[in-house]
Amino acid sequence: MAISTIVSPYGEVKRSVREEEEEEGAVLLVAFGTSYPEAQAAFDDVEDLYKKELPNTEIRMAFTSDFIRQKIRKRDDVFVDNPVTGLARLNDEGYVNVAVQSLHVIPGEEYHDLMNIVGGFRSIAGKFSFRCLALGTPLLTGIEDYQAVSVALGSQFDWITGADRRAHESARDPGETAVVLMGHGTGHFANSAYSQMANLLEKDYENVFLGTVEGYPELEDVLERVKASGAERVRLMPFMVVAGDHATNDMAGDEPDSWKSIFEQEGFEVEVYLRGMGSNEAVTQIFVAHTRAALGEPGEF
Amino acid sequence: MAISTIVSPYGEVKRSVREEEEEEGAVLLVAFGTSYPEAQAAFDDVEDLYKKELPNTEIRMAFTSDFIRQKIRKRDDVFVDNPVTGLARLNDEGYVNVAVQSLHVIPGEEYHDLMNIVGGFRSIAGKFSFRCLALGTPLLTGIEDYQAVSVALGSQFDWITGADRRAHESARDPGETAVVLMGHGTGHFANSAYSQMANLLEKDYENVFLGTVEGYPELEDVLERVKASGAERVRLMPFMVVAGDHATNDMAGDEPDSWKSIFEQEGFEVEVYLRGMGSNEAVTQIFVAHTRAALGEPGEF
Amino acid sequence: MAISTIVSPYGEVKRSVREEEEEEGAVLLVAFGTSYPEAQAAFDDVEDLYKKELPNTEIRMAFTSDFIRQKIRKRDDVFVDNPVTGLARLNDEGYVNVAVQSLHVIPGEEYHDLMNIVGGFRSIAGKFSFRCLALGTPLLTGIEDYQAVSVALGSQFDWITGADRRAHESARDPGETAVVLMGHGTGHFANSAYSQMANLLEKDYENVFLGTVEGYPELEDVLERVKASGAERVRLMPFMVVAGDHATNDMAGDEPDSWKSIFEQEGFEVEVYLRGMGSNEAVTQIFVAHTRAALGEPGEF
Amino acid sequence: MAISTIVSPYGEVKRSVREEEEEEGAVLLVAFGTSYPEAQAAFDDVEDLYKKELPNTEIRMAFTSDFIRQKIRKRDDVFVDNPVTGLARLNDEGYVNVAVQSLHVIPGEEYHDLMNIVGGFRSIAGKFSFRCLALGTPLLTGIEDYQAVSVALGSQFDWITGADRRAHESARDPGETAVVLMGHGTGHFANSAYSQMANLLEKDYENVFLGTVEGYPELEDVLERVKASGAERVRLMPFMVVAGDHATNDMAGDEPDSWKSIFEQEGFEVEVYLRGMGSNEAVTQIFVAHTRAALGEPGEF
Repeated sequence: MAISTIVSPYGEVKRSVREEEEEEGAVLLVAFGTSYPEAQAAFDDVEDLYKKELPNTEIRMAFTSDFIRQKIRKRDDVFVDNPVTGLARLNDEGYVNVAVQSLHVIPGEEYHDLMNIVGGFRSIAGKFSFRCLALGTPLLTGIEDYQAVSVALGSQFDWITGADRRAHESARDPGETAVVLMGHGTGHFANSAYSQMANLLEKDYENVFLGTVEGYPELEDVLERVKASGAERVRLMPFMVVAGDHATNDMAGDEPDSWKSIFEQEGFEVEVYLRGMGSNEAVTQIFVAHTRAALGEPGEF
Repeated sequence: MAISTIVSPYGEVKRSVREEEEEEGAVLLVAFGTSYPEAQAAFDDVEDLYKKELPNTEIRMAFTSDFIRQKIRKRDDVFVDNPVTGLARLNDEGYVNVAVQSLHVIPGEEYHDLMNIVGGFRSIAGKFSFRCLALGTPLLTGIEDYQAVSVALGSQFDWITGADRRAHESARDPGETAVVLMGHGTGHFANSAYSQMANLLEKDYENVFLGTVEGYPELEDVLERVKASGAERVRLMPFMVVAGDHATNDMAGDEPDSWKSIFEQEGFEVEVYLRGMGSNEAVTQIFVAHTRAALGEPGEF
Repeated sequence: MAISTIVSPYGEVKRSVREEEEEEGAVLLVAFGTSYPEAQAAFDDVEDLYKKELPNTEIRMAFTSDFIRQKIRKRDDVFVDNPVTGLARLNDEGYVNVAVQSLHVIPGEEYHDLMNIVGGFRSIAGKFSFRCLALGTPLLTGIEDYQAVSVALGSQFDWITGADRRAHESARDPGETAVVLMGHGTGHFANSAYSQMANLLEKDYENVFLGTVEGYPELEDVLERVKASGAERVRLMPFMVVAGDHATNDMAGDEPDSWKSIFEQEGFEVEVYLRGMGSNEAVTQIFVAHTRAALGEPGEF
Repeated sequence: MAISTIVSPYGEVKRSVREEEEEEGAVLLVAFGTSYPEAQAAFDDVEDLYKKELPNTEIRMAFTSDFIRQKIRKRDDVFVDNPVTGLARLNDEGYVNVAVQSLHVIPGEEYHDLMNIVGGFRSIAGKFSFRCLALGTPLLTGIEDYQAVSVALGSQFDWITGADRRAHESARDPGETAVVLMGHGTGHFANSAYSQMANLLEKDYENVFLGTVEGYPELEDVLERVKASGAERVRLMPFMVVAGDHATNDMAGDEPDSWKSIFEQEGFEVEVYLRGMGSNEAVTQIFVAHTRAALGEPGEF
């Protein structure tokens, strides 16, 4: 019989026992996923921060996209968990205190799927039950999250304003550069998060606009506002945790229907910023705060 | 990063995709488990029968005992699923029509745990849901199962009666040999199954008695009845799906508190039959019938 | 608009508020039900004992039989809860600590339905959730329950043996009178409870037999054993919480297929005992103990 | 024993039977509730439309506010269901095909509570299960709902523009009158719905603004925009299904901190429109469409 090793991209699974319960807690970070090595860097940053903030906690990652998981499997011969297999394995390894942390930007379909999964595992009474199974909410939950994200993004706008956020009003040169953030967008009711975020960003900053690839506001809504702003340059940034396929192609690609191409066709000078919000530590701290809140004060297992 | 292969003792996992749903159905056979290679033979027999009876169906096995799974892992470097990881992996591999089949003898704690697990997975709506997740009941469910088991065991008594079951009344030599079946027994309410089975066996056969290791009836209850029967020889058989640890040691071991030793101390000549009921095809067909019933008529996916 | 009062047979509902949580706990006793006023007496006895044992607790009753509930509704203009409406109303009235106590004899289909209902209510997170929703098991759960029931029934056999249970071995006149208990019986796997109970009764008493109306052992099994016992008189008793329709008609009725008629046809002198086990305080204390166990020690809210 | 009648404000309950299943389906409309008779008119309008649109369906209403239910109980001696008691009673009455329709504006905490309740009832297998239990989403779900609400509200703005919506661009007199809609607002993540709605209204109409009492955007955000618009008159309208307590007091009251008072203090001439969106048939048709969608095409039971 062949040798068996279960390997996740985040390290080898240590054991397969529930005989003794693990005293450590575990956090399962759940994201859509990416197969872009450059984009993966942002997930690594998130994971590193979690390890620093919760040092006695096992930190794992799961992806929900089968397409991406399959691609990684074929390319790298690495099995990445989905949230169901990830929870099943933590359960099997004796972790009875687990927090699932959504790494999604909005509480959309993926997050509601996660609520269902967590609810399903919570309903398993008996030997295979977790003692505590917490669920941390996505980036944009309460209004204070939106405000914190707006502040956190300020560091990404510094090179525009040449100043820190508090100074941006005096330092700005509105006629010069607009920031256009690209969110994912969805048909799910959570799509409204983008409008609230957009409104807060417009309130906090001059010439920072947010649009979505698949939802509302659309590119044309943003385009209209950018034109009205009088800006001559546009700097595109992903409003996503990682700068993966959408950021690389739909936003920054050379195809005629990329946002970059369209803004260029409209006469703007375009620059791109290709790092996901997961690499912005102030953003990632919001996820950590949500994990702590899910676990209850003081947020330790 | 290391190469990853997930291997179950029952063959390598083919893929990790839900992109396309599997047209095949799958059956997850769930047992307590055994680490005894000789006992494993009975599970292999069960699995072979399932493959024959449900030829277009993926047949998998899961064990619920962490001690046994861990022992196999360390000894053979093989990962055996528990029911939760087994379902998570089938789900991940795109099997949307799945039957979980309890290989337990009675609907006890292990079966009720399985009901909880199946209920939990059924409650997962959304992307990670199964389309159909059926649960087949244990061996002893309806009275017709008890009757069928009683008939099925007849073949194991042939060497006593020298005749087939229908002829056993004339052929029996009650004074000579008693069969003592050893069931597991439990504090769970399902323990009563052993009394009903014992009564049916006593009704169907001369001098066939059933006791349990951990429940009621106890060995002393059986001993009393065997003594009253006038038998001089006792043949011990496991009333378990596999002849594992309990059968090998508690029943047939040489320790002074084994059933064999105790019957010998009481003056009986003792023989042992060391095969689990899983190797009795007529018994295993009852499990198959329960799987079919769970799937609905005609019992195919 | 008409005046609204919700009345249960057990007293008027006090209020409809969750604004403030009830400090009192509540017990919802759940039985199949009966529309026979004489049989209802046993439920009243159960309820009275609960009120005595749990004095600061709201005690309610629910029936699962729609036929019976409808009959009571039409006859008495009284609405009796089923377990779902009963829990919904307790929830609405602010009782956040609730124990559901099965008044069933065996953990059969009705009990498993109750497990489902309790599981469903437990899974309701948020505003409408209970803080604690316990479920007490039926009469025959662990082997110690069977033993306790066997002892408890002794008082009902006194008039046979002319002595208390501990003296029954010397006082008995086996040739004279057999007790035949009538259980309900079921196709559910819990039917085996009757065999275990029968075996324990036969072990504890001379000439006490247990059969079922709809399961195994059947009347003919019992008849055979009674004949073999040499008894000339049979005293029929319900092995049910109340002496309702089955006890009155199937057991004690004058129809030719009643147990009374059949035993008479077989030449036995027949007497009937028409009180349910709910009127036997020693039996009812077992239910109370199960409620306490479900709530955890010391069994108070 | 007292006579029992269960009365809801929406008609007497017909029966308490599950013996025969109801062929009719049922819709349970769930709202926060109101104790204001004038506000109740909007719920009556919603109910009337449902009766017209789904003529062979039992239409019921439940309120989630215990304060309001209790007030109605004391004042009118009428018991109004909450969603749990409402579902329990429909279940009891034999309705096996039921749709729960949220009458909430946004998918906030109340809607997620409703998802939990529906999930809990769905998980009840066995005798007390519904065959189909659908859940219709709140008013603002997909972007098309926001667009439809924007169009539907046009009829409420006619008296401003003196023209139908399609003509409003030419007919408007932006300097003259602004519409300020008051939404409820929440700390729940669904609060972002108000921003998306506000943005769409501002895109569709000149000088139509949306703020919230308890969320974002706040009154001061709206005030700032109204001032910037150059309008001299403000017409306040509830962005709620009924014009209840918030509309009457927080919006249109004479207290110094009402929106009316504050706009007046800021020098605006203020008029109020005191009808809930439930009285706007075009809005209510969106709820009906959500019920039909939950039931599947063609949206009939």
